[in-house]
Amino acid sequence: MNGEYVAEEDAKISIFDRAFLMADGVYEVTSVIDRKICEFDGHMARLHRSLSELKMKPACTDDELLAIHRELVERNDLDNGMIYLQITRGSAGDRDFVWPGDDVPSSIVLFTQDKDLVNAPSAKTGLKVISIEDQRWARRDIKTVQLLFPSMAKMEAKAQGKDDAWLTEDGLVNEGTSNNAYIVKDGAIITRHLSNDILHGITRASVLRYAKEAQMKVEERSFSIAEAQGADEAFCTAASAFVTPVVEIDGEAVGDGTPGPVATRLREIYIEESRKAAI
Amino acid sequence: MNGEYVAEEDAKISIFDRAFLMADGVYEVTSVIDRKICEFDGHMARLHRSLSELKMKPACTDDELLAIHRELVERNDLDNGMIYLQITRGSAGDRDFVWPGDDVPSSIVLFTQDKDLVNAPSAKTGLKVISIEDQRWARRDIKTVQLLFPSMAKMEAKAQGKDDAWLTEDGLVNEGTSNNAYIVKDGAIITRHLSNDILHGITRASVLRYAKEAQMKVEERSFSIAEAQGADEAFCTAASAFVTPVVEIDGEAVGDGTPGPVATRLREIYIEESRKAAI
Repeated sequence: MNGEYVAEEDAKISIFDRAFLMADGVYEVTSVIDRKICEFDGHMARLHRSLSELKMKPACTDDELLAIHRELVERNDLDNGMIYLQITRGSAGDRDFVWPGDDVPSSIVLFTQDKDLVNAPSAKTGLKVISIEDQRWARRDIKTVQLLFPSMAKMEAKAQGKDDAWLTEDGLVNEGTSNNAYIVKDGAIITRHLSNDILHGITRASVLRYAKEAQMKVEERSFSIAEAQGADEAFCTAASAFVTPVVEIDGEAVGDGTPGPVATRLREIYIEESRKAAI
Repeated sequence: MNGEYVAEEDAKISIFDRAFLMADGVYEVTSVIDRKICEFDGHMARLHRSLSELKMKPACTDDELLAIHRELVERNDLDNGMIYLQITRGSAGDRDFVWPGDDVPSSIVLFTQDKDLVNAPSAKTGLKVISIEDQRWARRDIKTVQLLFPSMAKMEAKAQGKDDAWLTEDGLVNEGTSNNAYIVKDGAIITRHLSNDILHGITRASVLRYAKEAQMKVEERSFSIAEAQGADEAFCTAASAFVTPVVEIDGEAVGDGTPGPVATRLREIYIEESRKAAI
């Protein structure tokens, strides 16, 4: 927290921090495999884009951030899991819609979450998802902490006994609550094109690159729930999910209702490449 | 804060609080005139609606909240200003899109802001506003802390040398960044009808009631920026602004570019009635 390492129970921030009062903060989640950090450069590039779009200052340099990530791995003895990073606009003291002046520093918080990402049970069982109308704000390309709607959608999925929700708009799938969404049809991998309507997934970019390198056909375009239900396979990607199969959409099995070969292979490739490239 | 009165600099909350990590919190701002609390029942009714829509627990009873409001007036020697109240879903410890169980208590924070609301200079000068496309999430009827876009819109207005922004959708005005928007034409007061698209202003409800009691004509319907620019008057309402004239929209003077008689009269009535009803 802002240059200090503190115990979880002592990690407290002013109630005047703008992230607490106004959701004025951005974040990144970076995965850790075997004590090494995955896709660090990609996450830093997106962090800088988020900060820049909101005219928010970085709290420190990328080199300092890398050192902090590594220190957190050591101090928390983190073999596998995630490192969460949040930068907020800080606070000039009083609550105000107007941003504080340039003299007010950003606030930065990081913590780790222990999780055996590679051996996640969902990779074997696949996820069951429901579709929900996307009610988020218009700038989903900026990774802000405005996560109330995705959280509500996730709860709705849980209430229906499912795992996650795919968010739809004008009849087409944008993405999952915290992941990008894909279908596979006749060998082609189809995922929504980038725009301000979805998050520009770091895992998404890598997976599409690996898919192309493996001579798989990639189509970046919108698809409907009906098209997804009729696809051969479906899956999602996220830093903490890598590639995870989706086996059911709105009660309809996708393909034979089990993880498909493309998703399974892409997950293997992604983990293999991530292990190699992790720092 | 959660039952304790602490100094501003000691008012700190866990970084795992869901309001900080996921904007999972709701709020109310209640005005204070001459040490008395305005529209307490209205704010409590809306607070319960916000909590209910998000399946969030109240942190305490309304009677306890009233006692806290009064204690804050005393402890902060607050003659005039606002009392800010925020309830968040709390935290089960780890960051998760899934809500914590029923055993995890809500978190509650209140603080005061000192301001001579009755004699605000903007009541005499009027506000200059710009129009900006409304990019907020779809449930603006729930008073959540997801205020990043309104904050960005306010900053854009400031960058253009103006005071505030009116948020438009499909060519029609929804509301201001933190207030409801009105125009006056041929004696009729026109303001957007209630729906999930705008905040259900407590001040709005009272002002419309007072207007009807004073035999003024009220039309609850959408209007465009062009219609607003051609209106006789414009104004906005909010708990901390009461009724405040709007004298310019996107560079065009409204009426003669000074506060109009209807807005001025409604402000007088509102303050007079609020003084009488404050508790």
